[in-house]
Amino acid sequence: MDVKEIISNIQPVKQELYELAQKRLDSLTKPQGSLGRLEEFAGRLVAITENLMPVLDKKVIFTFSGDHGVTDEGVSAFPKEVTRQMVFNLLRGGAGINVLARHAGAEVVVVDIGVDYDFHDVSCLLEKKVVRGTKNIRKGPAMTRQEADKCIDVGIEIASDYGKKGYKLFGTGDMGIGNTTPSGAIAAVLTGRPVSEVTGRGTGIGDKALKNKIKVIEDAISFNRPDPSDPIDVLAKVGGAEIGGITGLIIGAAAKKIPVVIDGFISTAGALIAYCLEPKTKGYMFAAHKSQEIGHKVMLDKMGLRPILDLDLRLGEGTGAALAILIIEGGLKIYRDMATFEKAGVSNKST
Amino acid sequence: MDVKEIISNIQPVKQELYELAQKRLDSLTKPQGSLGRLEEFAGRLVAITENLMPVLDKKVIFTFSGDHGVTDEGVSAFPKEVTRQMVFNLLRGGAGINVLARHAGAEVVVVDIGVDYDFHDVSCLLEKKVVRGTKNIRKGPAMTRQEADKCIDVGIEIASDYGKKGYKLFGTGDMGIGNTTPSGAIAAVLTGRPVSEVTGRGTGIGDKALKNKIKVIEDAISFNRPDPSDPIDVLAKVGGAEIGGITGLIIGAAAKKIPVVIDGFISTAGALIAYCLEPKTKGYMFAAHKSQEIGHKVMLDKMGLRPILDLDLRLGEGTGAALAILIIEGGLKIYRDMATFEKAGVSNKST
Repeated sequence: MDVKEIISNIQPVKQELYELAQKRLDSLTKPQGSLGRLEEFAGRLVAITENLMPVLDKKVIFTFSGDHGVTDEGVSAFPKEVTRQMVFNLLRGGAGINVLARHAGAEVVVVDIGVDYDFHDVSCLLEKKVVRGTKNIRKGPAMTRQEADKCIDVGIEIASDYGKKGYKLFGTGDMGIGNTTPSGAIAAVLTGRPVSEVTGRGTGIGDKALKNKIKVIEDAISFNRPDPSDPIDVLAKVGGAEIGGITGLIIGAAAKKIPVVIDGFISTAGALIAYCLEPKTKGYMFAAHKSQEIGHKVMLDKMGLRPILDLDLRLGEGTGAALAILIIEGGLKIYRDMATFEKAGVSNKST
Repeated sequence: MDVKEIISNIQPVKQELYELAQKRLDSLTKPQGSLGRLEEFAGRLVAITENLMPVLDKKVIFTFSGDHGVTDEGVSAFPKEVTRQMVFNLLRGGAGINVLARHAGAEVVVVDIGVDYDFHDVSCLLEKKVVRGTKNIRKGPAMTRQEADKCIDVGIEIASDYGKKGYKLFGTGDMGIGNTTPSGAIAAVLTGRPVSEVTGRGTGIGDKALKNKIKVIEDAISFNRPDPSDPIDVLAKVGGAEIGGITGLIIGAAAKKIPVVIDGFISTAGALIAYCLEPKTKGYMFAAHKSQEIGHKVMLDKMGLRPILDLDLRLGEGTGAALAILIIEGGLKIYRDMATFEKAGVSNKST
């Protein structure tokens, strides 16, 4: 699989299909445009899938999991072993994303792409390990360029596999203690904003730990000197395995014309790498929500994506994506199921 | 039924139950507070219902329908007969609220409280007609004080009936061509803001019609001189039957400790009247969304309610309430179904 070729084949979303969808929306028994963003979501689903009557019967959220050597620097409120403990919790269905994905009628697939633990043959885990945790980015690159490429390959492959299995909508998610640190580094490098303006409290660190976290990210960037014009260099030097997997999933979704709902801060770091590799990927993305992590909005603005929800979430795992899927699907149901003025015998706008 | 007595018996929501709910939320496998407003919604449901493990198995959205004599003044883009046509569309399940309520697992009950049409015995319509449309508020009061009282009674009675039937969550909605005009009048009188700052385009009128609509509302207020310190006087003089029904539903919900999700501009005008009659009603309200109608936010701010969604909606019927119910229920499922740290064997925050 040649990633460059896949990327170069990504098509722009067809505006003419969006307009056709709007025509149908305008024939439904409501003032034109009165369902606001629901209409936008329906139109985008039509345009992305190139299907005038799309269905979202099979939906899946991928929770990419990985560890981070930078946890040695005290950047998280939780110990590193929580990543693997949470993977087990996810597989048993007890995590936040399990609850919200069930609520949204979506499946959860947990992907081990970089956890520092040998899961052997744990059932239901999608085993795609590229690294056993990244290295400490304060002291060197997170991973090699080859490993970063491999993470993207994994994501593309998953998108392709689940597309073939008939899944119509993807959501992204993450699990990895310490992963707001590489995400902050990516945000700073790819948006050009100071580290202090894109770094937040992650799982809930105090003022002192936040100051340290900012310093760690600044050090990681000065030490590794990632090249902002080379997104894969940024991923390799200051990123993470789960972030690379998310980047690949988005590229693969765009290549297969499958809409993909981007969760919060970590997922958006992955999305920003995909966007910097090929801006056309943006047409396939839905930004689920605006997280409490301050760097999140900065990255969404860089891509020109307006988030669907604003609920002060900062959990990750794909939880915001699950909630946004409910709203997006509401838009599709409006498009598919509402009566037209003609059918309902309702008089249309007089003026 | 003595409305004054019902209002005076409304209890404040119990803060200590909210705190008990937060304790449980803090034991679940996620960083404390990381599910933001979902946690707030779960805590509020516990506190409102005084039940440590609430269920939302039966949910219902009431679409209160009424006509408005002020449509004679050219305030709407749609002809008046659309109200009754849409009532039939609602009863057949083809309107926006039908689609979104099905999506949210809620029933829709269409209430005729003031439509200028004799429905005879149309099945499934809840027949509670108080007036056959209001009078033209530019030329006199919308209804008599007795009729306004009766509208509130109807709402209280419905809340009581559906509470007895075991419904656990109410949503409000409206259908009535012309009803952004009385809602704008109520917003102006009860918030003290100029009419031009609370009046929007309703179903989608142009600039000239908007200017006229503002003038009509200003005239209605100068002619009728509603007393801002007497919310029922405001309802009678410049309000509408469906708005009064919504006010009553909210009062009745608060009296029965049933959470009530307030839809958009018209519903919020009804909610503001309830709030001005008894501020404790606020504790039972969830503000579904921020509508595109500019006066909506002004009223929400007056009550100190933060909307759940912001999706540029301006349809009414209860559509925003249906979507918000999905999010609120997501919060409850988190509260009920997530694993605890202890049960999942996950290490809690180290610092």
